[in-house]
Amino acid sequence: MFLAMAKHMKWAEGFIAVDWGTTNRRAYRIDSSGACQDEFEDSNGVLSIAPTGFGDAVGQIRERLGAHPMLLAGMIGSNRGWKEAPYVPCPAGLDDLAGKLVWAGDQEAIVPGVSYVGDTRADVMRGEEVQLLGAVASKLVGPDALVCHPGTHNKWAQLGGGAIRSFRTIMTGELFSLLKDHSILSDLLTGEVEANDTFRSAARYALRNDTLPADLFAVRARVLLGQAEKKDAASYTSGLLIGTDVRIGLSQSPTDEIVVIGRPDLTRLYAAAIAEAGKAVTELGGEKCFLSGIFEIAKRMS
Amino acid sequence: MFLAMAKHMKWAEGFIAVDWGTTNRRAYRIDSSGACQDEFEDSNGVLSIAPTGFGDAVGQIRERLGAHPMLLAGMIGSNRGWKEAPYVPCPAGLDDLAGKLVWAGDQEAIVPGVSYVGDTRADVMRGEEVQLLGAVASKLVGPDALVCHPGTHNKWAQLGGGAIRSFRTIMTGELFSLLKDHSILSDLLTGEVEANDTFRSAARYALRNDTLPADLFAVRARVLLGQAEKKDAASYTSGLLIGTDVRIGLSQSPTDEIVVIGRPDLTRLYAAAIAEAGKAVTELGGEKCFLSGIFEIAKRMS
Repeated sequence: MFLAMAKHMKWAEGFIAVDWGTTNRRAYRIDSSGACQDEFEDSNGVLSIAPTGFGDAVGQIRERLGAHPMLLAGMIGSNRGWKEAPYVPCPAGLDDLAGKLVWAGDQEAIVPGVSYVGDTRADVMRGEEVQLLGAVASKLVGPDALVCHPGTHNKWAQLGGGAIRSFRTIMTGELFSLLKDHSILSDLLTGEVEANDTFRSAARYALRNDTLPADLFAVRARVLLGQAEKKDAASYTSGLLIGTDVRIGLSQSPTDEIVVIGRPDLTRLYAAAIAEAGKAVTELGGEKCFLSGIFEIAKRMS
Repeated sequence: MFLAMAKHMKWAEGFIAVDWGTTNRRAYRIDSSGACQDEFEDSNGVLSIAPTGFGDAVGQIRERLGAHPMLLAGMIGSNRGWKEAPYVPCPAGLDDLAGKLVWAGDQEAIVPGVSYVGDTRADVMRGEEVQLLGAVASKLVGPDALVCHPGTHNKWAQLGGGAIRSFRTIMTGELFSLLKDHSILSDLLTGEVEANDTFRSAARYALRNDTLPADLFAVRARVLLGQAEKKDAASYTSGLLIGTDVRIGLSQSPTDEIVVIGRPDLTRLYAAAIAEAGKAVTELGGEKCFLSGIFEIAKRMS
């Protein structure tokens, strides 16, 4: 398969896969069986690199992982990245992504993101699609599941026949960061967020109420009036945000199979909130899903 | 009446009223008839003054407006202000505020804020109460109206018998500022917010949907996918936030009389969103309501 991969590449020796986000990047050297032989992560995200600096940034990766062809996914394909890879519209499967790769160099291909345009709304993703479809390809997720992918911008994706049929982004992680770093709640949100009783109680409240911008101010009022302790405010606020997120996410799908893919510290919180909604949920690590997905795309290159 | 006002004051010569907020303050010299004879505004809000600096800060006001006794309202009575004035619980009228003044000096009295504690939530206000009750006292607002007071933290107050019976704070202004100054939407939100068709359309959407944290991300997706123009993003985002705010505010009251009190640039936006909800609404300037309320409190001091 690797001989067919691209123009001038020595694919039989393997390739490098990069999950290149806004603020960091993870690079993996993958052998011809799909196994990861070496990897690293650093903070050279897309926003830290000048528009003319991506050639050098790619060179640094090869210095560490070898002179292999590269498959790049994530914000590297955005209008702030190396070369823009236009979104593939839903429904989007691995064949669609593999068919719309954009070549940034002779040996560097960028995986496109996915767009959704419905009657009343529009949405975009870049990077999560590789993990979502990789999870399906490796049978970790059924072909018609509802998949949640927490992060700065959480994605709820409805799969159908193994493809992404629709999805919705919810700004939960970024809203929490804004509140923690810059708002009147900042001094209350210094503690750790845990999936404890406070978190679950706030999530239950938000699952049943649609008053988030009021509930957020009440975080402060509750402490001022002695109704809550400052140490609980971070978990409470996270519970309000993630409970709201789960309410919106579950409302779009009758699916019974719900899977959360991502970093364990985040999937744990979402799983707790989904459980409060009375739904069974499975947690999956995002990295193995990415490796599965990017290898599947490499196999389809021809 | 002024002879009875307080310990060591020369009330017959008038007094100084200060609406002292977090980031700025407005001071007024008021004569014995309640008329404003002189005034100024500056950016010496509570947060800009060191805990030991309030005596000097008050002295600066007297240098400009004369050596009169002072009635202070707003965040000056918070735990970040000069001296904490404990909240008066709902229902709260002018008599209740006047009966719980806190003396920061021999000639400086602080008006307390108001708290609300219900079965499922708690809330606080400081400063708006003077305007709300001043509007009632001057017959600009009926005794049982629903009053909206936009600002960094918008307040919806349900009046009853001329008192504040309950209220709810919605973090709308602060959320817009956070998104504008620090979020992934920052580069889209540089334009002016206007009560135009884009604003009204977004407000209508938010009045009928409870998906704000998803709709906010869609602001970016709509532009990326060519479904909306960047120049409209600020009005659209404001429409989403204020529409959500109005949906929550109207849901707590069957009242037909709805009044918006505050700065004209904000009351105009809220009035437009309330109109989209099919309700009649009256706009009032906040300053005259404040002057009415603070004079009514002065009259009650004994």
